Amino acid sequence: MKEKDIEEIVLEIKDKSELMVDLAYSSILYDNKTISEEVYELENVIDNLYQKLQRKSLEDVKKGAHKIEDALVLLRIAHAGEQIADAAQEIADVELRDVELHPILKLSIRESDVVFTRVEVEPESILCGKTLGELKLASETGMMIIAMRHKEKWLYGPNKNTKIDSHDILYAKGPQDGEKHLFDLSKGKSNKI
Amino acid sequence: MKEKDIEEIVLEIKDKSELMVDLAYSSILYDNKTISEEVYELENVIDNLYQKLQRKSLEDVKKGAHKIEDALVLLRIAHAGEQIADAAQEIADVELRDVELHPILKLSIRESDVVFTRVEVEPESILCGKTLGELKLASETGMMIIAMRHKEKWLYGPNKNTKIDSHDILYAKGPQDGEKHLFDLSKGKSNKI
Repeated sequence: MKEKDIEEIVLEIKDKSELMVDLAYSSILYDNKTISEEVYELENVIDNLYQKLQRKSLEDVKKGAHKIEDALVLLRIAHAGEQIADAAQEIADVELRDVELHPILKLSIRESDVVFTRVEVEPESILCGKTLGELKLASETGMMIIAMRHKEKWLYGPNKNTKIDSHDILYAKGPQDGEKHLFDLSKGKSNKI
Repeated sequence: MKEKDIEEIVLEIKDKSELMVDLAYSSILYDNKTISEEVYELENVIDNLYQKLQRKSLEDVKKGAHKIEDALVLLRIAHAGEQIADAAQEIADVELRDVELHPILKLSIRESDVVFTRVEVEPESILCGKTLGELKLASETGMMIIAMRHKEKWLYGPNKNTKIDSHDILYAKGPQDGEKHLFDLSKGKSNKI
């Protein structure tokens, strides 16, 4: 496998850190320790990526593959991603310390422009047996799946090849209007996609 | 006007800090100093909100309106939001320092699962004269408008009452599939919404 170049590492830090924030909020909203533990795992992944980036930036600059200015920009953006990851961990920590989130705050988060939701996919749902890529759920409903549980197995940040099965639990984020659409699709109340 | 309670302040910090991250990435992708300056402005707003939250938490706890444990959780979540805001500022700073983002990184960010886009609304577009609430753009296309420019006026984090006019420039974030849909709607190539 080709070694990742430094742009790819920066992008991975960016995407993972944003996923971590979404997972962290979901974990406190749904009192879910499994999700908050995943945020901790991802924080380790990000630390490793950042260290790899630092080493590779120095190597690249030394051999002339990158200019110093370019490498500096990448390091700064990655550093910001690492800060975001730390913040996500701080949020997830609230859940892990067994502190119950005040119901009013839960309600407020749910009333934000962007809401988090959780729904189980019923056997009669049109989503069953299809991949996220086929369904284009994110563009059709506005809801981005951030995590899903298949029996006892968890999947975080699923991609277009991820298949949805009956009884999977979807954790998603998106606009309020999109929540009902995803809910109706998951419950087999609507086939309009 | 009723004074904001501490849950509302925390939610405002949460929403604004996430908007800042999106704006910061947009500013470096589109070399746009106006957007990066807005990130700086918002950082001040967040600092003020955080200070207000600290004062109000202490007052609430003193008069028994909130339990210490509840206030602590709110302070921690708000602190995480403030960290995210700082990270956004660090990203925006790259743009303000006149450092040109490497084209390869721009491309990578554009190839992420979630993309940023910018599009001008043509006079023949179905979007003209309608509000974001009427259009339900976010749930219909997956694209969330994070900023828009109306002539020389900028608007950040528009809400459902925001009206789109001909020649407005929309800055949006969402899944790759959604980008083409928003583009076609804006250019009058599609009326399907």
